[in-house]
Amino acid sequence: MPTTPDTAFDRATALTPTAGGFTTELDPGWDVGGGVLNGGYLLAVVARAAVEVSPHAHPVALSASYLRAAAPGPATLAVTPGPAGRTLQHAVVVLSDPGGPAVSVQVTTATLHDVAAEHSVPPPAATPVEDCFSIAEHAHLAPPGVQVPGLSQRVETRLDPLTAGWALGQPGAEPVMRAWLRFADGREPDPLGLVAFTDALPPTSWATGRFGWAPTVQLQTLVRAVPAPGWCLVEARGGEASDGWVDEDYRVWDSTGRLVAQSRQLARLPR
Amino acid sequence: MPTTPDTAFDRATALTPTAGGFTTELDPGWDVGGGVLNGGYLLAVVARAAVEVSPHAHPVALSASYLRAAAPGPATLAVTPGPAGRTLQHAVVVLSDPGGPAVSVQVTTATLHDVAAEHSVPPPAATPVEDCFSIAEHAHLAPPGVQVPGLSQRVETRLDPLTAGWALGQPGAEPVMRAWLRFADGREPDPLGLVAFTDALPPTSWATGRFGWAPTVQLQTLVRAVPAPGWCLVEARGGEASDGWVDEDYRVWDSTGRLVAQSRQLARLPR
Repeated sequence: MPTTPDTAFDRATALTPTAGGFTTELDPGWDVGGGVLNGGYLLAVVARAAVEVSPHAHPVALSASYLRAAAPGPATLAVTPGPAGRTLQHAVVVLSDPGGPAVSVQVTTATLHDVAAEHSVPPPAATPVEDCFSIAEHAHLAPPGVQVPGLSQRVETRLDPLTAGWALGQPGAEPVMRAWLRFADGREPDPLGLVAFTDALPPTSWATGRFGWAPTVQLQTLVRAVPAPGWCLVEARGGEASDGWVDEDYRVWDSTGRLVAQSRQLARLPR
Repeated sequence: MPTTPDTAFDRATALTPTAGGFTTELDPGWDVGGGVLNGGYLLAVVARAAVEVSPHAHPVALSASYLRAAAPGPATLAVTPGPAGRTLQHAVVVLSDPGGPAVSVQVTTATLHDVAAEHSVPPPAATPVEDCFSIAEHAHLAPPGVQVPGLSQRVETRLDPLTAGWALGQPGAEPVMRAWLRFADGREPDPLGLVAFTDALPPTSWATGRFGWAPTVQLQTLVRAVPAPGWCLVEARGGEASDGWVDEDYRVWDSTGRLVAQSRQLARLPR
């Protein structure tokens, strides 16, 4: 592993090796409100642990079950690697806080190469970043009961006005959100950072005016390419909402318009 | 659990309880060619094991790492349940053949209720099933090197001619396939059957004339509702293809047009 840069994200995902895994200190600053840590942040910690024990450089697929909310503070990561192949390695990583297991993850690591895509998913038409608005700077516009989370101070989140009516008192009909994301301290995106970005927006149900916490039950994140420096465009789209369950799809494009990550999660609908 | 009906699918996924899990007999008839068992079939066996030990009735989310091809014949399922909640239960299931672990899965079980969707994904326009054609009955049309797999004799697969040019010597530009599916012996679909359906079509790369095996690396399947009896419409869509990797999205609608299951997988592109 190269030397880890000294940024908020790298500090918050730093690991100390132990027998069978790592210890870490979960940073309370990566919350989504109410002291609950962001699922993408937790998954990035897991991804770093898997890469550390792999002969390959990048997390390419992570499938996580969120067993319960992990508490900020000390945590352990138990890593059980599978056999390493020439192309990829599988591992199971369990993140536990003092209360027990919190996130259980199937991780696949591999090495992504800088080659052109054969078939690609182009980015949607989005408002240029300079015409978007920051969640953190518009805290006074937040809907009643909605806190501006610590996450939005770590990950600069500029909402596309076309899908941000909910933040201005005018929810829309479709559960879709778009935003430009970058680390607030200028850290450039990389595959580990992308993992965090694939669960970094508010629940898509907020776009339709249904506020409240939407706990993730399972989240699958795929990292498809090493991102170019600069802003990432993120689109989250709710699919079927039924019987208390909703699925959300994230797609992330880098500053060159290349699809670099995607995720799907099953979550509980806000009540 | 209710009495298991005597159908090909239920026999092929039957389990015998043991300490810590189950044994099963993987049926060589559910292959995708070359003696390789279908990933959806294996995932259905895993789903049945998770439901057996859960207080809840249905598999709602499964995220699987395919470690290596599982051999037909005797296999074991080690089930490690998490704490059971009122709404859902998580578990980890590892399916092993005599050679070792083959599939490692995060499973969430819950009970799906018969309620209307709040936001739904309508089915695509598809050719009526009576105007579609059967993979199994058109074996003579299979492209060179393409075997008609056992799977297509267990799961009746009627390809929509609009996306089946590849089977008639005229591959298309888009990696998309649609087909109507039902169990060949008349067994009606249910949540376990849907799990198998979310990985039941040929690789979407075949639609563009790129034949060959596309091994699944990770697969996430979500079951969203108990399906109505009758044919299911399945659409598989390839996304980003790059650097030897491809993602595929499946959506499954029941005979009433309701979205009942979906999946996403990361696979290796055929060479």
